[in-house]
Amino acid sequence: MLTFLKEKVFQANLMLVEHGLVIFTWGNVSAIDHETGLVVIKPSGVSYRTMTAGQMVVVDKDGKVVEGDLRPSSDTPTHLALYRAFEGIGGIVHTHSVYATSWAQAGVDLPNIGTTHADYFHGAIPCTAAMNKKQINRNYEWETGNMIIERFRDMDPMHTPAVLVKNHGPFTWGADPFQAVENAVVLEQVAKMAAVAYSINPSLEMNQLLIDKHFERKHGPDAYYGQK
Amino acid sequence: MLTFLKEKVFQANLMLVEHGLVIFTWGNVSAIDHETGLVVIKPSGVSYRTMTAGQMVVVDKDGKVVEGDLRPSSDTPTHLALYRAFEGIGGIVHTHSVYATSWAQAGVDLPNIGTTHADYFHGAIPCTAAMNKKQINRNYEWETGNMIIERFRDMDPMHTPAVLVKNHGPFTWGADPFQAVENAVVLEQVAKMAAVAYSINPSLEMNQLLIDKHFERKHGPDAYYGQK
Amino acid sequence: MLTFLKEKVFQANLMLVEHGLVIFTWGNVSAIDHETGLVVIKPSGVSYRTMTAGQMVVVDKDGKVVEGDLRPSSDTPTHLALYRAFEGIGGIVHTHSVYATSWAQAGVDLPNIGTTHADYFHGAIPCTAAMNKKQINRNYEWETGNMIIERFRDMDPMHTPAVLVKNHGPFTWGADPFQAVENAVVLEQVAKMAAVAYSINPSLEMNQLLIDKHFERKHGPDAYYGQK
Amino acid sequence: MLTFLKEKVFQANLMLVEHGLVIFTWGNVSAIDHETGLVVIKPSGVSYRTMTAGQMVVVDKDGKVVEGDLRPSSDTPTHLALYRAFEGIGGIVHTHSVYATSWAQAGVDLPNIGTTHADYFHGAIPCTAAMNKKQINRNYEWETGNMIIERFRDMDPMHTPAVLVKNHGPFTWGADPFQAVENAVVLEQVAKMAAVAYSINPSLEMNQLLIDKHFERKHGPDAYYGQK
Repeated sequence: MLTFLKEKVFQANLMLVEHGLVIFTWGNVSAIDHETGLVVIKPSGVSYRTMTAGQMVVVDKDGKVVEGDLRPSSDTPTHLALYRAFEGIGGIVHTHSVYATSWAQAGVDLPNIGTTHADYFHGAIPCTAAMNKKQINRNYEWETGNMIIERFRDMDPMHTPAVLVKNHGPFTWGADPFQAVENAVVLEQVAKMAAVAYSINPSLEMNQLLIDKHFERKHGPDAYYGQK
Repeated sequence: MLTFLKEKVFQANLMLVEHGLVIFTWGNVSAIDHETGLVVIKPSGVSYRTMTAGQMVVVDKDGKVVEGDLRPSSDTPTHLALYRAFEGIGGIVHTHSVYATSWAQAGVDLPNIGTTHADYFHGAIPCTAAMNKKQINRNYEWETGNMIIERFRDMDPMHTPAVLVKNHGPFTWGADPFQAVENAVVLEQVAKMAAVAYSINPSLEMNQLLIDKHFERKHGPDAYYGQK
Repeated sequence: MLTFLKEKVFQANLMLVEHGLVIFTWGNVSAIDHETGLVVIKPSGVSYRTMTAGQMVVVDKDGKVVEGDLRPSSDTPTHLALYRAFEGIGGIVHTHSVYATSWAQAGVDLPNIGTTHADYFHGAIPCTAAMNKKQINRNYEWETGNMIIERFRDMDPMHTPAVLVKNHGPFTWGADPFQAVENAVVLEQVAKMAAVAYSINPSLEMNQLLIDKHFERKHGPDAYYGQK
Repeated sequence: MLTFLKEKVFQANLMLVEHGLVIFTWGNVSAIDHETGLVVIKPSGVSYRTMTAGQMVVVDKDGKVVEGDLRPSSDTPTHLALYRAFEGIGGIVHTHSVYATSWAQAGVDLPNIGTTHADYFHGAIPCTAAMNKKQINRNYEWETGNMIIERFRDMDPMHTPAVLVKNHGPFTWGADPFQAVENAVVLEQVAKMAAVAYSINPSLEMNQLLIDKHFERKHGPDAYYGQK
């Protein structure tokens, strides 16, 4: 069932290791099958070294396991909440990569201060609000998803496909799991660059025109970066 | 004698190199055989490149060499003090990993400011007090153990399996030597994240509810992270 | 056509990956054929993993593709502007390397505070001014080149073969594409060193005599570094 | 001539690359033959990739080439000055490693704030004074050696086998070239640790008793670290 999508999700999970974004069993990638609405996700707490494509778990939109011998990632409800709310996304990534997580721990938005950021994300990467007791105790991972959705109420998730969950870490997404991984890699890079840049000049300024130009050059209707 | 445990201690020592926590002859891993109370530990000042499993040294609870041609790690008395005081631990790791050591040199507790930390350590990683002349001159490595034990007087060493020895470096422990190594790797990651996070936002705040949630999700009676 | 130069440009592009200056499709290297005035440059948005020497694109001084099936780098007009203005340069490199980009985002010149810097660059690496609406909307990449040229109005581009484009990233150049790559690698190193050095001592001072000495020792008429 | 020493110097130079302390042609290692007083040193500006043991240059105490087809390192006079002044040293290393060089650029002594440092260096790693016009213009590299010697007037170079040349970079030494390389690696580690530690706690304090203890434990008359 969904053999090809499982292989993609498996490969995308391994890319997290290759790019130095995760260690041990940390992080997870999922993808949605738009036709059936089923989601394929990494099993919980399984090592990247021994993991196989066949171990990817298939869940329905309510998180019920449809296929798979292992438990799905404990973050599955967060993924499901995002698939439900953000139309058009095909893959989601969660990591604890060092610099993006540091910004999440700092509890502030990651500002867009350069074209590296603007090539992938239109605005600042928003940081969610702190969760309250009820949210944490009831259905924690689902509520984590709701915190993210709430933060994007007035933002376009396809223009800024990443978020920092406060005191936790980043989630990124994209049209498919590989694009979600690419966004996770870029997020880590720009998170490092911004930390260094502010240490050099705490009062630096960004040029908003440049943000718009670089984002449009790659993602706008008249995009001319890359091949046709 | 204790061939299997020697092999485990040997492999765990090599993992320190693999994870970038030690160079040259730095660092050491030990494990205790709960049945006999004997401890297997890395020999002192031996290079990881040439070290063999057979060179692991077996010592009794007083530090007397029971088997082995080489001297045990000079930190052996610290390990022995911890095995005696902390029931249930099976392995101990000492490294001079860069970021954890930096916090030890800074002389302050490493605060728990994110779920990466809370997934492994319930509270802040405590930093020991400065040692006095008597402690340093008498039986330095044994007293180092005592300083750690003193610091954990009101803490559960299984809930926060790591310590920063002031102006020195980290010790971590676990149910077995591999878990102790995993804790050493995670400690280094969260030490880096916290250094970066505070450089971004010196007045950041942690959500205590989130600490409890993440620690319980992995280590509590109703833990649901990972496989059954 | 220009097969040998294509091979050189191809190899120089791969060196950016090898030295950790670029990921994915980021960055680009070009070289000029002094005889014909034609420029060979990396195709736009092509992965370093699958790229071949034959895919390098040949453009004339106005950016018209003379040979090649793919679109040239979207930064081609910037390269062309620099070849036109800076006599004697044979290769140009553009990257988003972490520390150099951080200085570009900080929006300040990278000061010359050590001999590592002075061995390659005589003065500070200048940061360009912010671009205005007209420049960004008209012919953005060409105007980026003009901003660089404007910044070098009273500087010798051969003595300081690098620039930081504000809120964007570095460009470096040299007698050939390999020297331009070497300058990009060194720029990243000195950008990191300077960020660390200022964090240690914000009021550090450089010795101008030492800058002149080291620059002359390698590049002056009586240079004695290296082999004859 | 001195074939075995050439091989050692060659291997020690390659170790600089392996440990990430140098790139391109940067850095150099030398060793002295105590019997003849001849010094073997890396040739100037030769790449580590193509360098052979046979290319090591033999010079006498005045810097005259006794054997070798290539020019010796341009830093040779600095090495010679140190061999003349510091009795008992057998090898010298010069690098532009990132963190040690950052401290040199910061222009301040690298304080001893931890046992990692104290295991190898008794005191702070001193930073030399700024050189004046006469020193720079006359015989620059020889005068660099004199600045170092001047700084060690009241220090024991065997107890603190490293120095930071202001606005330039580190030199380390040891009983042989391999020990000098080891000291260069450790210097880079402690330079990084100290930069991070001060960023965490600018008012941190070191325990002098601990410095003495760790230095003695490894280097004192009753040393007990390592094997007999």
